[in-house]
Amino acid sequence: MVKVGIVGGTGYTGVELLRLLAQHPEAEVVVITSRSEAGVKVADMYPNLRGHYDALAFSVPDSAALGACDVVFFATPHGVAHALAGELLAAGTTVIDLSADFRLQDADEWARWYGQPHGAPELLGEAVYGLPEVNREQIKQARLIAVAGCYPTATQLGFLPLLEAGLADISRLIADCKSGVSGAGRGASVGSLFSEAGESMKAYGVKGHRHLPEISQGLRRAVGGEIGLTFVPHLTPMIRGIHATLYATVVDHSIDLQALFEQRYANEPFVDVMPAGSHPETRSVRGANVCRLAVHRPQGGDLVVVLSVIDNLVKGASGQAIQCMNIRLGLDERMGLSHAGMMP
Amino acid sequence: MVKVGIVGGTGYTGVELLRLLAQHPEAEVVVITSRSEAGVKVADMYPNLRGHYDALAFSVPDSAALGACDVVFFATPHGVAHALAGELLAAGTTVIDLSADFRLQDADEWARWYGQPHGAPELLGEAVYGLPEVNREQIKQARLIAVAGCYPTATQLGFLPLLEAGLADISRLIADCKSGVSGAGRGASVGSLFSEAGESMKAYGVKGHRHLPEISQGLRRAVGGEIGLTFVPHLTPMIRGIHATLYATVVDHSIDLQALFEQRYANEPFVDVMPAGSHPETRSVRGANVCRLAVHRPQGGDLVVVLSVIDNLVKGASGQAIQCMNIRLGLDERMGLSHAGMMP
Amino acid sequence: MVKVGIVGGTGYTGVELLRLLAQHPEAEVVVITSRSEAGVKVADMYPNLRGHYDALAFSVPDSAALGACDVVFFATPHGVAHALAGELLAAGTTVIDLSADFRLQDADEWARWYGQPHGAPELLGEAVYGLPEVNREQIKQARLIAVAGCYPTATQLGFLPLLEAGLADISRLIADCKSGVSGAGRGASVGSLFSEAGESMKAYGVKGHRHLPEISQGLRRAVGGEIGLTFVPHLTPMIRGIHATLYATVVDHSIDLQALFEQRYANEPFVDVMPAGSHPETRSVRGANVCRLAVHRPQGGDLVVVLSVIDNLVKGASGQAIQCMNIRLGLDERMGLSHAGMMP
Amino acid sequence: MVKVGIVGGTGYTGVELLRLLAQHPEAEVVVITSRSEAGVKVADMYPNLRGHYDALAFSVPDSAALGACDVVFFATPHGVAHALAGELLAAGTTVIDLSADFRLQDADEWARWYGQPHGAPELLGEAVYGLPEVNREQIKQARLIAVAGCYPTATQLGFLPLLEAGLADISRLIADCKSGVSGAGRGASVGSLFSEAGESMKAYGVKGHRHLPEISQGLRRAVGGEIGLTFVPHLTPMIRGIHATLYATVVDHSIDLQALFEQRYANEPFVDVMPAGSHPETRSVRGANVCRLAVHRPQGGDLVVVLSVIDNLVKGASGQAIQCMNIRLGLDERMGLSHAGMMP
Repeated sequence: MVKVGIVGGTGYTGVELLRLLAQHPEAEVVVITSRSEAGVKVADMYPNLRGHYDALAFSVPDSAALGACDVVFFATPHGVAHALAGELLAAGTTVIDLSADFRLQDADEWARWYGQPHGAPELLGEAVYGLPEVNREQIKQARLIAVAGCYPTATQLGFLPLLEAGLADISRLIADCKSGVSGAGRGASVGSLFSEAGESMKAYGVKGHRHLPEISQGLRRAVGGEIGLTFVPHLTPMIRGIHATLYATVVDHSIDLQALFEQRYANEPFVDVMPAGSHPETRSVRGANVCRLAVHRPQGGDLVVVLSVIDNLVKGASGQAIQCMNIRLGLDERMGLSHAGMMP
Repeated sequence: MVKVGIVGGTGYTGVELLRLLAQHPEAEVVVITSRSEAGVKVADMYPNLRGHYDALAFSVPDSAALGACDVVFFATPHGVAHALAGELLAAGTTVIDLSADFRLQDADEWARWYGQPHGAPELLGEAVYGLPEVNREQIKQARLIAVAGCYPTATQLGFLPLLEAGLADISRLIADCKSGVSGAGRGASVGSLFSEAGESMKAYGVKGHRHLPEISQGLRRAVGGEIGLTFVPHLTPMIRGIHATLYATVVDHSIDLQALFEQRYANEPFVDVMPAGSHPETRSVRGANVCRLAVHRPQGGDLVVVLSVIDNLVKGASGQAIQCMNIRLGLDERMGLSHAGMMP
Repeated sequence: MVKVGIVGGTGYTGVELLRLLAQHPEAEVVVITSRSEAGVKVADMYPNLRGHYDALAFSVPDSAALGACDVVFFATPHGVAHALAGELLAAGTTVIDLSADFRLQDADEWARWYGQPHGAPELLGEAVYGLPEVNREQIKQARLIAVAGCYPTATQLGFLPLLEAGLADISRLIADCKSGVSGAGRGASVGSLFSEAGESMKAYGVKGHRHLPEISQGLRRAVGGEIGLTFVPHLTPMIRGIHATLYATVVDHSIDLQALFEQRYANEPFVDVMPAGSHPETRSVRGANVCRLAVHRPQGGDLVVVLSVIDNLVKGASGQAIQCMNIRLGLDERMGLSHAGMMP
Repeated sequence: MVKVGIVGGTGYTGVELLRLLAQHPEAEVVVITSRSEAGVKVADMYPNLRGHYDALAFSVPDSAALGACDVVFFATPHGVAHALAGELLAAGTTVIDLSADFRLQDADEWARWYGQPHGAPELLGEAVYGLPEVNREQIKQARLIAVAGCYPTATQLGFLPLLEAGLADISRLIADCKSGVSGAGRGASVGSLFSEAGESMKAYGVKGHRHLPEISQGLRRAVGGEIGLTFVPHLTPMIRGIHATLYATVVDHSIDLQALFEQRYANEPFVDVMPAGSHPETRSVRGANVCRLAVHRPQGGDLVVVLSVIDNLVKGASGQAIQCMNIRLGLDERMGLSHAGMMP
């Protein structure tokens, strides 16, 4: 059994790790930390876990206990993994970070977007971006994996076939993204209240959102150069789900887009290209580690519309983290992640 | 008092007309028709109207009764107004049609999108498109008003300042629109069930939606020529509200977009340009006859993002219809429509 | 014009007062206080109010400014009205308190339930409980009105006809109540997050909820003696609305319950007894100052089921407060409150 | 592998059977019938199943194909199992019926509540009521299992400890139950539309609901005599979940209710008695085959309040059906059903 530690397990990505790992046949969560909830059993905080983790309780972060794990997941606000990752790596533990701490390769860019200095620039060199559909081989060897964010996963998986094939005008890409409210986390904030976020829709962060540089970095990698991206996130009255609606101008009309997408993801266990003409629903991936895609060219014009849906807490966070763990440990990549989405 | 008739009042735009007209000091609903519900009191079908319309009952459509009204609203599926409007116009009644029957000026285009021949092409010449912010003067004289649709209202009001000023690359406009479920009407359909549309998001009609030609027609009028528009509607888990996120490339960087929008709508009672940097929420217009706009230029690039929200049943349907009625009858345009949105 | 002040206007009952007063022809809000938001325009915090209160801004509480008002509403957490009411009364202002500060006649009982000493027991003698259907005459003369709470309004209006007529076994009354999330207020708390309260239902406070003594006091008054009441509140995934399902054993089988209820409320402008066999929906009163009731005797047994719905922010708070103001000032009781609920 | 057939798999209990059976290691769905959708792949209708059932398609009901199955589930409207069950039993197939066809032992009572004659009274003698916590031994031998309904499961599991121990006044039991909208099924009906059922709450069927005789039958069995039950179901704006709030008067004050409940369900894998003072949330069982209970005695009085939550589609339908199958076939009762609920 793989011994798993979780740092900061009180938030939504933490409880989702616990839910998914409970059905993973090769993993056992042996330590989960939270300063504020130390001593509280996880099943008392999350009653859905009653019967699954009856002994496990939150504990104060302790390097020795975490360092004794085979894998440690960080499900923390940004900055925490900066402080602890180095020590765990030195202890021989694999670190899989669900936060944004090691996603941007450029420490200065990180500092600009997060408003504080990067806390562990010396580790950036070995951090591998945790998007298996791009980086599977590197993940197999990685000691430090920076799991891709939710918007970045949905957006990159939708754009990549076009960009890798050199088919899009890369100077004018648009990602109009809609997220469920759980993407804002479990922290108490007025904007995430039921009575504020319910029965309403709004854009936010149009001026600039922290996922913009992460997406741009991934798209630049795909094309080997600069790209122009406009990213507009929206808050949607649902708990889980991201729907990315992606717009790109194609420069070659002769290409069969459906075949292009199907071929790109033919061997990917967690990317599902739907039949031509489809409109994926976020609920079709609710609770499941799947990105479901459809590609359209409305009225046969040169503008391509890609529809991409994920569950922000699964393929956009905790499921993808476990997928990375499976790859890293040489397990079947689908282990613990093969269940279907919940619909309705 | 203005004598008002409503044809087809059992749907959401019908009950919303009743709700709004109940507080209109100069209008009295004297007849409301429904073949299927004839004899049923409106307050039995819509208990929110108890105490407001205790005597009013649905009746079988009758030309004489409708023709005796000063104004008749059609809150019907397409095709119904085609059949009845001519007779009512001949009787001297003003017809305000909330359906799509007279929105497209080209009968052949209408036939293509609606899959049946246009039923009253002879009336198209005098039909006035009911978007007061564009056509106020013509509405004052109109006998037949084709109230603008919900997506078209939000989209046109957002694009018009840019297009009228000649500032946008009109060949590549994008309208990414999100609608609440009430936009699909009150008909029983699986796709609009709570358990299907709840907790999920999806695009639909990417190949082509009936509001596309309506929007295109309005934008062509604004620029005096052809335009290129991609329109992607989405279904969102809320009852009311449309959020249009509009993308246009500006051709002149020197323009002050905020000032442009504020000036365009300075005298419009029902268009509210929010301060720079704002993100309008659909709930801020819930139940109110308002279109709320914000304009952004992310990262100072040449792509402009306009955010436009309305209540699809009010400024996107019944409220706008009453606004047209007020204009047509020389009443204060705001009469019966001056209440604030309901938040939360 | 009546000069109105609002203390603590940043919460949901505050913004609802503003929404309703905006359409009140005889009231003008001249001061609204909030320590934390002093200087912020109300329309910047609540964009639905743009165009309605463009000059009004929150200010630091100031006794002189408030004392110069004809009426001051308290839309504050408990304890605040205790501290300020006396001074305002001394200045000749009518105080209408939406908080729980003066609802319980017994200061010791208040202290037990609220965990702090009562701050103004000397004012209890003149505080009038603001439930017009019970206390209309006293409200006309009151200087200090303690507006009935949301659960207490729905529950008392449902039980009163039975109890006043001496028809129920008063030792075993049950109120199973369901509330929308806005009842928990606008404070940031994890339990009220969209992702916590959405798509779920739970009871809370079964051991004892602060509205229990308030309801019991009202029912005792109706019967002139002790009563036995079990009150179980539930949190429901909707923004607005309370549905009270009330159970009582009747001691006289011969009575016509429908007639009893209709007669009790025959002259009440804001209580609507629905036809026999009805099931009122909370949405039928959304945004409206109405309590809608239905009475059932399932299977003809001796257990009576009363269904009672209100909008917790209107008839359960701000609307009822304005109703009290109208009564107090000798205005038409329905002024500003006559609009229909919003459905859908 | 157990060969499984499903009759009528297009509804919510059908797709939920498919979702759960996809992760069942010993079951394989070999036939699923639907007249209206014959020829359609299940994964085309339910995209969440893509990758899980890529070959399986709906077929016209065929007795030979169904009779060749080891187990056939009926996920059909009432009346269908009446017509087909006999033939399948004759073929040696075990029939597990999720509909109401064989739940009531009395054919005449069934006929009264369902408005049509019972179609297979000759099979009632061997029909076993599929509530494993009551009937596990009989289920082991049963050829025909009538899976308990959703409200009846939540209600009976909550009342049984009290009733079996002879502790309650059985003449005045109250079940105030709240259900998510999926309980109304996937049929297109106005009342289940998002815009009708959303943001609202209402009681329904107060006069008499079809689950009343089923619950009463189960409670009578527990006490060995007549009982008096008032059952009020409510429609709640969530997709999944039932919350039963149960009221009973206890006749013996000395009993330790918490211990009573814990002992009653000590060996039950799918009933979870929460710690004293708890308030179970429906979301804690979302997607999981669990009934979660808490028992309260407010203010130490003689009225006991039991809170009982299930997912209506899992422990209230498809999960319970699979639990019955596991018991019947001698498999581990938890097989395929051991995953945690999804929260948030």
